[in-house]
Amino acid sequence: MSTPRKPRGPYRKGLERREQILRAALDVFSERGERGSSLKEIADRVGMSQAGVLHYFESREDLLLAVLAERDALDTEATADVMSPGEAVARTVGHNARQPGLVDLFVTLSAAASDPAHPAHAFFKRRYTDLGARIQEGLDQGRRQKQIREDVDSDLMARLLLAVSDGIQLQWLLDPSVDMTALVQAFNRMCAAAPVGDSDDPSPTGEGD
Amino acid sequence: MSTPRKPRGPYRKGLERREQILRAALDVFSERGERGSSLKEIADRVGMSQAGVLHYFESREDLLLAVLAERDALDTEATADVMSPGEAVARTVGHNARQPGLVDLFVTLSAAASDPAHPAHAFFKRRYTDLGARIQEGLDQGRRQKQIREDVDSDLMARLLLAVSDGIQLQWLLDPSVDMTALVQAFNRMCAAAPVGDSDDPSPTGEGD
Repeated sequence: MSTPRKPRGPYRKGLERREQILRAALDVFSERGERGSSLKEIADRVGMSQAGVLHYFESREDLLLAVLAERDALDTEATADVMSPGEAVARTVGHNARQPGLVDLFVTLSAAASDPAHPAHAFFKRRYTDLGARIQEGLDQGRRQKQIREDVDSDLMARLLLAVSDGIQLQWLLDPSVDMTALVQAFNRMCAAAPVGDSDDPSPTGEGD
Repeated sequence: MSTPRKPRGPYRKGLERREQILRAALDVFSERGERGSSLKEIADRVGMSQAGVLHYFESREDLLLAVLAERDALDTEATADVMSPGEAVARTVGHNARQPGLVDLFVTLSAAASDPAHPAHAFFKRRYTDLGARIQEGLDQGRRQKQIREDVDSDLMARLLLAVSDGIQLQWLLDPSVDMTALVQAFNRMCAAAPVGDSDDPSPTGEGD
């Protein structure tokens, strides 16, 4: 969340209050999912009235979007030490598997947001463009290091990684025995450059003998 | 739709009427999406009252599910001549790109169905198990024919193909410039067995000279 200038006084207090509500909302959604969560419970946890909460977030939708943006930011923070986008997604889905409520919130809201009239439409559209570009950058770096295959465009591969990550969340919500981490790791194996047969070393491996 | 015995008389007439409503619903959803579709319009197209339609489909949800099942059946029919699951999905998404309303219906309803209490929950859970098993079978056949790589479990690959197909629909609804067919084809390339280096023919290709 970027702020135009160094916050101070009542403005800073407001930001802190907003952050406090956001954390409470993240906890409530994480525990109860979108359908089981109420503005009342979030307000109760921070000792405010519902009207008080709505002073910081214009609507329930506005709060939901802020929760998802915060979740993206926390995921990015938690994977900052990981070089490859595929590994970052693998770690994130492993983390998500312990927060079914947030996965549920994401899946439900992203689907509803496909409607151009939905308040979350612009958020999700931008999310895929931004995340896609960042993942593509990481994949291009992996290509330069000969870790990522070069016969599939990195922009397509980036979009596929996002699609995999979304699609397996849906499958997992329907059937919690689905192993999201194993699926992302399998996908990552398919993105990897072939381990043998570098073009400057065409010698056979000799496995046939 | 399996029938326990050969339908005749009024029962057969009922089935025909049901089929007629289903086709009309498929058209309406295809044109208008889930949010823009009304039971009234579907009823109007078949010259019935809304109560008359609800005689054949218990609820709006029941009709929606029948529409999605019919769509799956039509997709299967339309790809019966295609051997590889990946090619079948590529053809299906190309077809879907001309039916945004149905894609929207699918994405919205599958997300809502993640709630175990939702009337479509069992339908979608079974859908992924059944489709996954069928795709896995096709991939295993491809492996025997050395067309599909063998270093990734075919059950994981099958689940990934379904995830890709779902995830790119969401991205496409948010941004219609996303090329779903190119994405599935890129994924298929990643599933393919390496074109060179058969284990019984370890000779170098000689490209280095």
